[in-house]
Amino acid sequence: MTLLAGGVGGAKLAQGLDRAAAGLTVVVNTGDDAVVYGLSISPDLDTVMYTLAGIADPQQGWGIAGDTYATLEAMARLGQDTWFRLGDRDIATHVLRTARLRAGVPLSLATAELASALGVRARLLPMTDDAVATRVDTPAGRLEFQEYFVARRHADEVLGVVLDGVERAIPAPGVLEALDADVVVIGPSNPFVSIGPVLAVPGVREALAVSGARRVAVSPIVGGRALKGPAAAMLAAMGHEVSALGVARLYAGLVDVYVIDESDRGLAAAIEELGMTVMVTGTVMGGPEDRERLAREILAT
Amino acid sequence: MTLLAGGVGGAKLAQGLDRAAAGLTVVVNTGDDAVVYGLSISPDLDTVMYTLAGIADPQQGWGIAGDTYATLEAMARLGQDTWFRLGDRDIATHVLRTARLRAGVPLSLATAELASALGVRARLLPMTDDAVATRVDTPAGRLEFQEYFVARRHADEVLGVVLDGVERAIPAPGVLEALDADVVVIGPSNPFVSIGPVLAVPGVREALAVSGARRVAVSPIVGGRALKGPAAAMLAAMGHEVSALGVARLYAGLVDVYVIDESDRGLAAAIEELGMTVMVTGTVMGGPEDRERLAREILAT
Repeated sequence: MTLLAGGVGGAKLAQGLDRAAAGLTVVVNTGDDAVVYGLSISPDLDTVMYTLAGIADPQQGWGIAGDTYATLEAMARLGQDTWFRLGDRDIATHVLRTARLRAGVPLSLATAELASALGVRARLLPMTDDAVATRVDTPAGRLEFQEYFVARRHADEVLGVVLDGVERAIPAPGVLEALDADVVVIGPSNPFVSIGPVLAVPGVREALAVSGARRVAVSPIVGGRALKGPAAAMLAAMGHEVSALGVARLYAGLVDVYVIDESDRGLAAAIEELGMTVMVTGTVMGGPEDRERLAREILAT
Repeated sequence: MTLLAGGVGGAKLAQGLDRAAAGLTVVVNTGDDAVVYGLSISPDLDTVMYTLAGIADPQQGWGIAGDTYATLEAMARLGQDTWFRLGDRDIATHVLRTARLRAGVPLSLATAELASALGVRARLLPMTDDAVATRVDTPAGRLEFQEYFVARRHADEVLGVVLDGVERAIPAPGVLEALDADVVVIGPSNPFVSIGPVLAVPGVREALAVSGARRVAVSPIVGGRALKGPAAAMLAAMGHEVSALGVARLYAGLVDVYVIDESDRGLAAAIEELGMTVMVTGTVMGGPEDRERLAREILAT
């Protein structure tokens, strides 16, 4: 089984799937990777990795539980702008990743090493080993993703999303093969800046479209709202319906089963008209047991 | 006034001189710089910088007072060998230095930026912006300096010191000019692996030899022992007398005034035969006031 994932929502479902069965591959968005203080940061890979390792911070959706901020405070004392928060333990990951990348190791291998060291059983794959930079067009101009997302707290209206470099990117080793699994799940992640970049890597959307896998997507919109992040605002700004149906339309032709929350049961008929089977269940994931429950329901479709 | 310095002993005297008068330049050994976890570490520059900034750890002789080790512990969890101890606040320095060097900024400018951010008044200069690697020949083979010094706790007999790359190194901007000061002080640092590399940068020894400055050296050996580190063992292993006189012989022709501790008063006559004026005082520096006291005595010679 394979999961396409962005950050928090995808990470929770990854944990559920990993608890439900062995053999999980997670293909993760790297469009919001950034270099901060000279360190190579892969926010979505780390969120998935820390969640699978059982050390993710349960509140903030990034970083390691119980982390401290001594390095960042020292950075501030050295005159640095510290809007990009990095905990001390988290920094160990970034320092090691940066050293490996500088040594010429591809991100996919550096990721496998880190995940292995943390005891992660699932296979974590970046969507590509090449540089892809998600940028967001707003009334204030084109913004780097982390500037939009972290520094400006995704408050700007999003007029469009640009995936700089994606047309030259090559799927990381194993990504296309992973789309040929028994089940491919599109996680409840932002369709524009989490799943969108994964699908935009040349060959990925095409491979998923012709895959023999049972393709299941979990709606990131519940009751007309995103559980986390700017997905709802982006749908609205870019002229899509802000609902599970609006997202389903984006995935038409790529998905066999679409999973919506019980509160969206009324949308089922319209979604089925898109050619998808709808599964209705509780999609708002709580703790690990609840994530596993949703995963088992998905695997049983 | 200018001070040539290695780590702890040089740093203490630097603080004394900086308290005694404005206008201090410190030329610092970079032969034991290393890349650890991909981070560019300059141990002697940092010891001098932290000491001048008033944040040095008073016990261990490296790092920042009260520092924590969360990043290092996370590195260990990620499978790294953590014999090279780096505190969380200290890591901020290394991360920023590394980013600046990677951006093409020379070490001298990166050092000036860091020192300025920490409020250091004195001018800190690396001996060179070029890479020089001090290596130590031992019965166990040729060792990288930090492997010899930290990992193996300078327990190996030292058969010789190699300064790899020094013959191609260029003095950092300002170094040669700084040797033309009113007073040039050689700090109580290891003559082989702290002062030796500074003097070995092409042009430095020659400039000091012809300098119009009053040249003062402070013995790193007191009562036949080094206050810190392997200086005494190195003197012995390389066939020199293990005493303030043994070091004085290494500096013959470069030094006008040689400062020895009261406990070495008996060596004064033999040292004066080398063509140096001897000053006898308490050279074992305690706290900041005591460092300033020694500095004022040196400046008054």
